[in-house]
Amino acid sequence: MIRVGVNGYGTIGKRVADAVAAQPDMELVGVTKTSPNYGAEGAVRRGYDLYAAIDDRVDEFEAAGLGVAGTLADLLDAVDVVVDCCPSGVGERNRPTYEAHDVPAIYQGGEDADIADASFNARGSYEAARGAGSLRVVSCNTTGLSRLLAPLDETYGVEKARVTLVRRGGDPSETDRGPINDVVPDPTTVPSHHGPDVNEILPDVDVDTAALRAPVTAMHTHSVNVTLDEEPSTEAVRDLLGGESRVFLIPEGAGIDGAGALKDYAADVGRPRGDLWENCVWEESISVEGRDLYLFQNVHQEADVVPENVDAIRALATDASRAESVARTDESLGVGLDSLLSDGGAARSPLAADD
Amino acid sequence: MIRVGVNGYGTIGKRVADAVAAQPDMELVGVTKTSPNYGAEGAVRRGYDLYAAIDDRVDEFEAAGLGVAGTLADLLDAVDVVVDCCPSGVGERNRPTYEAHDVPAIYQGGEDADIADASFNARGSYEAARGAGSLRVVSCNTTGLSRLLAPLDETYGVEKARVTLVRRGGDPSETDRGPINDVVPDPTTVPSHHGPDVNEILPDVDVDTAALRAPVTAMHTHSVNVTLDEEPSTEAVRDLLGGESRVFLIPEGAGIDGAGALKDYAADVGRPRGDLWENCVWEESISVEGRDLYLFQNVHQEADVVPENVDAIRALATDASRAESVARTDESLGVGLDSLLSDGGAARSPLAADD
Repeated sequence: MIRVGVNGYGTIGKRVADAVAAQPDMELVGVTKTSPNYGAEGAVRRGYDLYAAIDDRVDEFEAAGLGVAGTLADLLDAVDVVVDCCPSGVGERNRPTYEAHDVPAIYQGGEDADIADASFNARGSYEAARGAGSLRVVSCNTTGLSRLLAPLDETYGVEKARVTLVRRGGDPSETDRGPINDVVPDPTTVPSHHGPDVNEILPDVDVDTAALRAPVTAMHTHSVNVTLDEEPSTEAVRDLLGGESRVFLIPEGAGIDGAGALKDYAADVGRPRGDLWENCVWEESISVEGRDLYLFQNVHQEADVVPENVDAIRALATDASRAESVARTDESLGVGLDSLLSDGGAARSPLAADD
Repeated sequence: MIRVGVNGYGTIGKRVADAVAAQPDMELVGVTKTSPNYGAEGAVRRGYDLYAAIDDRVDEFEAAGLGVAGTLADLLDAVDVVVDCCPSGVGERNRPTYEAHDVPAIYQGGEDADIADASFNARGSYEAARGAGSLRVVSCNTTGLSRLLAPLDETYGVEKARVTLVRRGGDPSETDRGPINDVVPDPTTVPSHHGPDVNEILPDVDVDTAALRAPVTAMHTHSVNVTLDEEPSTEAVRDLLGGESRVFLIPEGAGIDGAGALKDYAADVGRPRGDLWENCVWEESISVEGRDLYLFQNVHQEADVVPENVDAIRALATDASRAESVARTDESLGVGLDSLLSDGGAARSPLAADD
């Protein structure tokens, strides 16, 4: 059993904790919070041992009626791997502490790439992460792009990818963030940092990204163009992407017209927290014109990195192969959404057409 | 076992179906959909028998790969009670069909009050609904107001209630609704219809309502003033409302600052679909100035009527008392949220202060 601690039980941390707790080969030792707020209460309700992220706040937790098992230092003494899910930049401040406790650490994509020995995405760089003493799981957007570009590059070759990222302004509980009533270039410079971040995973793929922010909270939306080396049919690209376990093809005619309906569907199929771990690609948007592929995909910023963190733990702490780890993660969480309506009407399936 | 059918498996219907399926004394016979969309897929995935709401669409379901058990008429022949969860106005069109099948029906609050023998809210009018052949569960906003005003009127007497309803524009999946970037009077006439609808439940409570719509999807927000006959302390009102099983007092200091955080908390404590079945009252907003009580409450428009529908089924089909039905509903669903942080710091509890 790999003993895992999660430092920072916020949007990502609470989901990583649930995912770790669901793994047959992992033990969630505990999670940290900086203050006894509703998130800390949620951890206690789930039966997770709570640790104070800041030493002198133990009394504050006790006073609020949420007992803690110790401090961050105590947690680090009890684990084989720590997953840092703190806000961007705090991971960098935490690094010396992890190193002092000699605990291999996994950081999130809000940190600079040089915080860890390697950046990580299970589809794009699992084997390349072998032997690292620390890993950085790339951001939700970079994860979504890596999952898409890796199979396209392997199968057809990517000459150049150009992507516009229409990013959500904040998470659903982040009341104070903007923008409101505007779509703002962010950064205004083009290309944005997302393309270079993809190159931390796929160094040989030529990709430029332009990023905007919109007044929405549910998901990011990517408008993707990839100029391929070959000229596959639209159908072939649909089948290729449909075969990826962490890509969900949103079926035509299902009535899913945006992020709101997508998350409604996620709840309908029983996803905890309405989470969508997969890239969500609108099937009918997939179009090939000559060597140019176009599509829209949505990325759930709260969720898509969660299975990646689980795989990163195995890459760091075990000899499991990529295939073994991904299969185990997907099986335990239920990753690999496949709509019953995908072949509705038997429009595309030769097998069904023979029925 | 009460055999129940749900006609209309949308925002409310899917939740009522789950709630009925969770009752030890009820059997969910099946649900209807008008077309084989993602919602229909969700019903099939949950193992619910699907019925075509429109007779000549059976083939359409079959072609989409979602087999149906029959049509609405077949469902009505197999149930003791039907819960109509169709869009507003469709219930009225369905009424002759239910009557032709001699099936007692429960309608939703979007229908006119005269569609049924009585309007229903478990807290306000359970016993008054006895002997009815059909019931109408009042709307989410009226439900929220009835739950609040019933205990206040019983305990202190209500001289007059004045409420501003800041309503959500649409549900999360309703992409096409407004308003965007505006708060609009709706209706512009004051008082709105909500006050008279409360009087369908509490005929003797004097209440005026003014309604707005805002560009949000998560919850309605009520700004409430109630002039009471007596002058209770703020503390006494907090305790009164805190003792109501379908009122959740949002604790001070928990970091819950709006509907986004509220729904995040609901997911943290394991609520299916992030649902909040209770009125959510900001504890620190509760203030008494002389005989004037003020508070803010949020109402989850997708969820608060769900336990009410379950109780309405028992009121229509059994001899269970209000207390028996409400206790059974709350126990089976887990209604009655009570934060571990409610008495954090022992600031208010005399018992805790003695510790």
